Amino acid sequence: MILKNIGEFGLIERIAKHVKAGKGVIKGIGDDCAVLKWTREKHLLATVDMLIEDEHFKRAVAPSAIGWKALCCGISDIAAMGGVPKWALISAGLPKDLSVAYVDKIYAGLAKAAKRFGVSIVGGDTNASRKMILDVTVFGEVKKENLVLRSGAKPGDLIFVTGSLGGSVYGKHLNFTPRLKEAQVLVKNFKVNSMIDISDGLSSDLGHILEQSKAGAIVYEYLIPKSKRARTIENALSDGEDFELLFTMPAKEALRLLEKKRKLFKMPVTRIGTIVGEKYDSKLVDIFGRKRDLQAKGFTHF
Amino acid sequence: MILKNIGEFGLIERIAKHVKAGKGVIKGIGDDCAVLKWTREKHLLATVDMLIEDEHFKRAVAPSAIGWKALCCGISDIAAMGGVPKWALISAGLPKDLSVAYVDKIYAGLAKAAKRFGVSIVGGDTNASRKMILDVTVFGEVKKENLVLRSGAKPGDLIFVTGSLGGSVYGKHLNFTPRLKEAQVLVKNFKVNSMIDISDGLSSDLGHILEQSKAGAIVYEYLIPKSKRARTIENALSDGEDFELLFTMPAKEALRLLEKKRKLFKMPVTRIGTIVGEKYDSKLVDIFGRKRDLQAKGFTHF
Repeated sequence: MILKNIGEFGLIERIAKHVKAGKGVIKGIGDDCAVLKWTREKHLLATVDMLIEDEHFKRAVAPSAIGWKALCCGISDIAAMGGVPKWALISAGLPKDLSVAYVDKIYAGLAKAAKRFGVSIVGGDTNASRKMILDVTVFGEVKKENLVLRSGAKPGDLIFVTGSLGGSVYGKHLNFTPRLKEAQVLVKNFKVNSMIDISDGLSSDLGHILEQSKAGAIVYEYLIPKSKRARTIENALSDGEDFELLFTMPAKEALRLLEKKRKLFKMPVTRIGTIVGEKYDSKLVDIFGRKRDLQAKGFTHF
Repeated sequence: MILKNIGEFGLIERIAKHVKAGKGVIKGIGDDCAVLKWTREKHLLATVDMLIEDEHFKRAVAPSAIGWKALCCGISDIAAMGGVPKWALISAGLPKDLSVAYVDKIYAGLAKAAKRFGVSIVGGDTNASRKMILDVTVFGEVKKENLVLRSGAKPGDLIFVTGSLGGSVYGKHLNFTPRLKEAQVLVKNFKVNSMIDISDGLSSDLGHILEQSKAGAIVYEYLIPKSKRARTIENALSDGEDFELLFTMPAKEALRLLEKKRKLFKMPVTRIGTIVGEKYDSKLVDIFGRKRDLQAKGFTHF
């Protein structure tokens, strides 16, 4: 049996079996970040994301965009927990014959993202490698009352997304803005029951929330905000790397959000569905009221 | 100009220019770990180490040893700061056609090291990659009074190493034991002025201490404890990945250590030289009293 046969999530399940929750671990494998015991008021958040040449980007891409993306993936994870990023470690594998000017631009992209989102780069590792590799660990902190997990969705919650979805492969996946500001506004003003950043694709990431929350969902196809670059609804459902926020909140909070959203946000915040009990499973409803199964078809690595 | 021309340390210098020390950063780039503000009594330590197939190991190697090493590199870094490891994130790039059994063994090796040294694996990332990549972030804590940096060596300090050096390429580099216990005994019982783990090689890692401490050193060639696998003194001076501790302490403390070392340690702890002022530079003295320059000839990646 090879990795391709069990897939990414099969692999993660196997890994989780080797791992025992230990001291000071509030939430280990299974969310956007690990949540670790920190101070009386706050938890420490930690996440890591690897980008590999020819798997995630081509060398022809602007090197500053590679650096920007490498750091912003982790910032997006921290945001989706309700936290703010603080520090980062940059681990790099770089070809010996890569030009110094190219490498400078990668690090300039990293530094730009660091400055924009208030992150200090505090260390890392450098190695020779045939393909470029950038693996970035981001640490953040979250006030205990602001922590949002994937596992908190409850039947009756309304489901929301920020921005618009699909077609990020045409450029947004390299130049996206992590929704840090929006996530902070959300957790400071509302009771958010569950949240995730859309990295694998709407259907898959909603699947992560449902699995962790032991819940089902009804999503209204015609409410999903399709980006200009999305050709079909399938793009909005399954394309990875939108890095928008997907979140759920109780109906009462949701009504407050719908009322205030134009004042609070500079971007669309759209209701796309409802959380239901687990036994209802996950359905996509079209404009004629026809239901079909909403299957996780987003990006997986294997 | 390409990376090969500026070398690993040239690259790190360039990277450091992009980086500004920020809030809560006690020590950023330039030591075994980043040191970050935590509580009144302790600091957070964080370090990351990347292993790449065919750069650091061959696929034919026992996969459990790859996992063991991937975690132990970071544990060794935490130990060398006077800290104890707590949590780890495992970021992996794995070929799609790798057998699940092989991957299980890698994670079993990681889990074995985690259990042995009290580390909880709290998250990570998994990606498809043509070559295997394991990038492990380790977090630890250090009591403020136990923190040891590379930069604290003072003229008059005696220089010590644990264990024996050289020839780790014949096996030890995969199965080494991080000197966590020994480092803890040191920082709890003595005033240690500077410490590093020997990963690049004795001459290079002593060079890191001297550079950060703005000091020189006299090392007595005939005092260096050569391992059985080291053929010449050059192996003991320049082979990387011994993962022994190299440290300096004031003469008075050193005398106490020499007196007590048999009771406190189960392995050799050997005095190999003396820290001198910067202008004396770094000299190696042979058994006839002849001096030659001690140049950093250890492992570099580019």
